[in-house]
Amino acid sequence: MTSAETTNVRTYLKEKGQFVDKLLDRYLPLANTDPVLLHTAMRYSVLAPGKRLRPILALAAFEYCKGDAAGEDQPIHFAMAGLEMVHTYSLIHDDLPCMDDDDLRRGILTCHKKYGEATAVLAGDALHDIAFLLMARTGLVQAGKELAEALGTKGMIGGQMADVEAEGRDVSREEVIRIHTRKTGALIRCALRLGGLIAGVDDMKLAVLTKYGEKIGLAFQVIDDILDVEGDAKRLGKNVGSDSRMGKATYPGVVGIEQARHDSAVLIKEGVNALDIYGDSVLKDIAYYIGQRDN
Amino acid sequence: MTSAETTNVRTYLKEKGQFVDKLLDRYLPLANTDPVLLHTAMRYSVLAPGKRLRPILALAAFEYCKGDAAGEDQPIHFAMAGLEMVHTYSLIHDDLPCMDDDDLRRGILTCHKKYGEATAVLAGDALHDIAFLLMARTGLVQAGKELAEALGTKGMIGGQMADVEAEGRDVSREEVIRIHTRKTGALIRCALRLGGLIAGVDDMKLAVLTKYGEKIGLAFQVIDDILDVEGDAKRLGKNVGSDSRMGKATYPGVVGIEQARHDSAVLIKEGVNALDIYGDSVLKDIAYYIGQRDN
Repeated sequence: MTSAETTNVRTYLKEKGQFVDKLLDRYLPLANTDPVLLHTAMRYSVLAPGKRLRPILALAAFEYCKGDAAGEDQPIHFAMAGLEMVHTYSLIHDDLPCMDDDDLRRGILTCHKKYGEATAVLAGDALHDIAFLLMARTGLVQAGKELAEALGTKGMIGGQMADVEAEGRDVSREEVIRIHTRKTGALIRCALRLGGLIAGVDDMKLAVLTKYGEKIGLAFQVIDDILDVEGDAKRLGKNVGSDSRMGKATYPGVVGIEQARHDSAVLIKEGVNALDIYGDSVLKDIAYYIGQRDN
Repeated sequence: MTSAETTNVRTYLKEKGQFVDKLLDRYLPLANTDPVLLHTAMRYSVLAPGKRLRPILALAAFEYCKGDAAGEDQPIHFAMAGLEMVHTYSLIHDDLPCMDDDDLRRGILTCHKKYGEATAVLAGDALHDIAFLLMARTGLVQAGKELAEALGTKGMIGGQMADVEAEGRDVSREEVIRIHTRKTGALIRCALRLGGLIAGVDDMKLAVLTKYGEKIGLAFQVIDDILDVEGDAKRLGKNVGSDSRMGKATYPGVVGIEQARHDSAVLIKEGVNALDIYGDSVLKDIAYYIGQRDN
């Protein structure tokens, strides 16, 4: 990736990220409406600075399929906001004392540290719920189905459960891949599929988006593991080294850092190659960007 | 209500309850499929003996609207199972140490007591999710929307938050009604509306079902409060007196037991009266049964 391309994708991600922030602000309940504490906690966690990767990928997939997102309150906007809300719900519950017991997230105190555990459990539940309301607002039954499948026991929650169960014991490379594919990969894959489905994509192009999503979803989590070993806490906005302290199953933990770096690069390349038959797309630049990310 | 009518409605509730149990068994993931512990915990909590009131009300509303539920895997079946799954999710999260910290539910150990807190949080999340998958399977976008609205911050979760916030302080009768209407009423109201909507009900009859649902939903929670003061722990399957120990806002706590009993009877009657314009229905018997329930 040349530095000009890096600049372009950085600009794209920044602009679209700001657009996602506006959507989130629009579709979250106002903090001054009852129940005030709950709405305040939800807004605190969702509106904390984030990469907004899942909604941006949904939008990029939508554009890749020639979807037209002009105007306010378009189906793709509901899906984008819903994706970030479920992502935040998963972070809030994952940070709870009974789960990963984290104090810091996106550079600020975790939801339960700031508002207490009961409020954090309910804030997560409420965001989980709003996401499905937003999926219903797309008008597509399939949108709710895709999201529910990505989040369920064969997807994200199944991955989180396997992650908890794997703590403190030796795991194989295949097992880590299986955890990561579900825990992180399923929702990223879903983001790409939703973008395509809302644009009215055909099956063949949907299969391309799905494959791209699977490859970069897994790559994203492998790089997350690498950053947890080598990253800068300030830039990441969360504590580093927490995976190994928790005895978590990590990809570099089973294959080593150098092999992990190599494998993530291969995954990125495979994701990019999957797109080839339909020509160029910002999705390629995003994939390369993920491969080089430092936060 | 005569004793013959009581027998009839008891038989109806028992038969339909068994039918709901079969649906739940059918739509829950098998315990021996990965992730085993999570699926085991989900089945443990959902399949524990329960009244299955919400799915039965959905079915009764569906029949009231001349819906035909013959055959397997009908839309109404998905909605019925989904309602019980979200109800169970709400119980699991509500019982957590950071919420009501209960040890006993439906006559057995609560999910976190049996399987640990992390598993209980995830089991609740997964059931929340399956419910939306089942709503998608009805084929009606509206089903997911209705459920999301009933569960959200203007519905059940908002009620739970208000419930937590009201602990240990004086509340007014109006405030308790507002908590109960959201915490318990919203999902019961949703059950009736889903039954009607899936049967293709017209707006006028849907309004009747909605009013009935609002009245008996509130009555149900007022009676729950009364049973928490006066009930038998063994019959209830949960500890009694826990509301007052927790300093919870309860209806008899603000108006006294006698007035609470009177008001619940009035609500039941108002619910029954709402149905009058469309003739007789088992919904009336269920309402009276709720008024006399002892568990």
